Amino acid sequence: MNDLAGRLAAIAGADRVAVDAATRRAFGRDALGRGHAPDVVVTPANTADIAAIARLCHDTHTPLVVRGAGTGYTGGSVPIRGGVVVSMARFDRILDIDVDNLLAVVQPNVITGDLHDAVEARGLFYPPDPASLAECAIGGNVAECAGGPRAFKYGTTRRYVLALEAVLPTGEIIRTGSKAVKNVAGYALTDLLVGSEGTLAILTEITVRLIPLPPQRRTLSATYASVEAAARAVSAIVAGGVVPAVLELIDRPSLEAVAAHLGRPMAPPGTEALLLLEVDGHAVAVDDEVGRTAAACESAGATSLIAATTAAERDALWEARRVLSYALRSVAPRKINHDVVVPRGRVPALYALVDAIRRQYDLRIAAFGHAGDGNIHVNLLVDPADGAEMARATAAEHALFSGVVALEGAITGEHGVGFAKAVHLGVQLAPAEIALMARVKHAFDPHGVLNPGKMWDTTAADLAGLDDGGMRR
Amino acid sequence: MNDLAGRLAAIAGADRVAVDAATRRAFGRDALGRGHAPDVVVTPANTADIAAIARLCHDTHTPLVVRGAGTGYTGGSVPIRGGVVVSMARFDRILDIDVDNLLAVVQPNVITGDLHDAVEARGLFYPPDPASLAECAIGGNVAECAGGPRAFKYGTTRRYVLALEAVLPTGEIIRTGSKAVKNVAGYALTDLLVGSEGTLAILTEITVRLIPLPPQRRTLSATYASVEAAARAVSAIVAGGVVPAVLELIDRPSLEAVAAHLGRPMAPPGTEALLLLEVDGHAVAVDDEVGRTAAACESAGATSLIAATTAAERDALWEARRVLSYALRSVAPRKINHDVVVPRGRVPALYALVDAIRRQYDLRIAAFGHAGDGNIHVNLLVDPADGAEMARATAAEHALFSGVVALEGAITGEHGVGFAKAVHLGVQLAPAEIALMARVKHAFDPHGVLNPGKMWDTTAADLAGLDDGGMRR
Repeated sequence: MNDLAGRLAAIAGADRVAVDAATRRAFGRDALGRGHAPDVVVTPANTADIAAIARLCHDTHTPLVVRGAGTGYTGGSVPIRGGVVVSMARFDRILDIDVDNLLAVVQPNVITGDLHDAVEARGLFYPPDPASLAECAIGGNVAECAGGPRAFKYGTTRRYVLALEAVLPTGEIIRTGSKAVKNVAGYALTDLLVGSEGTLAILTEITVRLIPLPPQRRTLSATYASVEAAARAVSAIVAGGVVPAVLELIDRPSLEAVAAHLGRPMAPPGTEALLLLEVDGHAVAVDDEVGRTAAACESAGATSLIAATTAAERDALWEARRVLSYALRSVAPRKINHDVVVPRGRVPALYALVDAIRRQYDLRIAAFGHAGDGNIHVNLLVDPADGAEMARATAAEHALFSGVVALEGAITGEHGVGFAKAVHLGVQLAPAEIALMARVKHAFDPHGVLNPGKMWDTTAADLAGLDDGGMRR
Repeated sequence: MNDLAGRLAAIAGADRVAVDAATRRAFGRDALGRGHAPDVVVTPANTADIAAIARLCHDTHTPLVVRGAGTGYTGGSVPIRGGVVVSMARFDRILDIDVDNLLAVVQPNVITGDLHDAVEARGLFYPPDPASLAECAIGGNVAECAGGPRAFKYGTTRRYVLALEAVLPTGEIIRTGSKAVKNVAGYALTDLLVGSEGTLAILTEITVRLIPLPPQRRTLSATYASVEAAARAVSAIVAGGVVPAVLELIDRPSLEAVAAHLGRPMAPPGTEALLLLEVDGHAVAVDDEVGRTAAACESAGATSLIAATTAAERDALWEARRVLSYALRSVAPRKINHDVVVPRGRVPALYALVDAIRRQYDLRIAAFGHAGDGNIHVNLLVDPADGAEMARATAAEHALFSGVVALEGAITGEHGVGFAKAVHLGVQLAPAEIALMARVKHAFDPHGVLNPGKMWDTTAADLAGLDDGGMRR
């Protein structure tokens, strides 16, 4: 055991420290499938040990990367400069569900879906619902400001985080926010830490705001002969004052992949776009709003319209959306998933941009996602063994990001920057803005030990060798 | 004209620079009624001029304070170390209301109530509704993260700010956020700037998110023989899954002040607490929820219950709440208004604390506010000429702030810290947390020129002479 591992063992206990190749390799990847192995993995049991580990890394200028469930898409939880991975595996308890005050206190490694189940059993609702909710952890959701289909009506993770306990890279334990839903004493450090991608502090306890569980939910599906017609339906629904909880759009290439995966068609012939909608809230209001939503869908030229009346029918409507990621993976060896976002009214312009990119760069592209908030997952379906195709994909990425910024959108709406999008951050942010963020980083982390090489800080050397199996050392 | 004024005139034009005593005195006070006069007041016409002014102040280490409508309660928009006041008076236009994308782009000196009127005329809704909405500006709302009665259901200002254009103290113009409602590219600078009280950057353009205007709104009022009974009603309403848009509580001393002000009783004899409730949303849902709210109010022991059915009846129910601030001003020469906040279920404990403080320090205290989110305005009604009473009030403030922090609340929910609450910030925040905020401040403002002497940075010298008429020089 090397010196670093020995010092970590002295803090957290020898049985909590691993340096074997298999463990290091496992912690050198997340859902992105790329990264570098850490030198040591430590699994501390309490906040005080994390503070001591942070101080050790600060004093020795050793990279420290925090890992929860490891389901991120941009490499946020994997090292690219070696060092220590702190696994939060032992921080997995729901500490309190306070029904009267509409809040819950959780440790960061609670699985998001488990939090949903626990609060819904008490008649409460935690709206953020990233697609990976069955396996992702709430700490990662906070670190990335996770979204999900319900974000159009309910907002993303930041809107539900009331307070945090966190360890600074310098080893101090801080508390931000409070259990009170209003709090303007000092800067909004809670909101700043949400979405900071593990680069500012190590989250050790999270207090989330809850709302009453909507008593009724109804699901509809409508198909269209063009994306423009589907977008007209969305505009008509919103113009009528209905805010659906879910407003997903799935394009033809995505539907074809699902049809191939399931072995049966998902929509009538000629379908270019499928809308999946859910309306929730007060029971009588939902009945009325479902009717108005269906009318808006039809007036925009729906070629088919289905309203679920049973749970089985609802599950059938959701099936295409649920299997979509798996279906796309079977279409091509690699799926490069970009979660770009534009103002909602510009979704047709975004699809026109994707069409142009598809033709210009001769690529298979499937685009689906959250039409309500303009957050569309643009998937480039490529073969890493085809060097020419990969080069075209790289050029296409630049065109995509430049295009969404020109549409007054953002290069990432849900997944964060990590190291996967770091080279594109300058397309959206000006040098003065990135320099300001780097100064904020320095205010938290003067030695730059916490999750180095991410966001704007990714160098060519960091990225070298990432595709060689994930092991640098 | 002194050298500083001359250099400002060279940037913004001589007709935009004032150094006369009357102007300086006017810009040395806000709604708090205390402050120090600036040396110069400049009223720039565009962002480029503001950038040049910021750079001048940065280079010469001159304090720079931004002023909008000047309606703040904690001194955020007045200098306490002289220097330059930048009046935003010319930034008063609504630049765009984008109905399809549910957003508006405004300059910071737009009056909040005017924004309400403009978007509601288009069928849209900007929920934050600080009590001063007829005269406060949206820029100040953003700087302080303003709340208001509707915050229980709809949240405070931060939830509605999508993007900002801002000038750094170093003179760079930055843009944060985007028109897309999801954006996780880099740190959440937008959320950090909201509530930063004019200490990090000068806001020059604000993009706010809008929602569809709720089509129906109904108002109720209920009275109780104890605050505990009123709080039971609130808990029963929320437990039943109803989230009222407004849930205000007015205590007996406040009702007595209103009765004296208007010359007629506002509630039945023996009333200790009045609840003012509004339910909004889908018309049929509102009808049902009003019925359930009324039932919950009655089951908790309401001594009277009124549901408005006409606009005139609604106005009558709101009258006590609307005239409250004016009524309290006529009770005592000075009203020290503290906007403390606790988790909602602890509102009875907060009132018990206020009762104990009232007895221990022999003070008149009226407490009313937003029972839904636990944000209660505790008003100490004092006479500045009575030195003994003022000393007791100072001791009472410390007891109040310590008490709300013990209840897991916050010392300010709406008004901010400014210099008025700066001496109390350490009751809520630990030294490591304040030190971190100071480092964040330094990342934005290395020379410390922007709104110095506020939040944690207020010294005894800053506060000396504040009551002598507002003029230091």
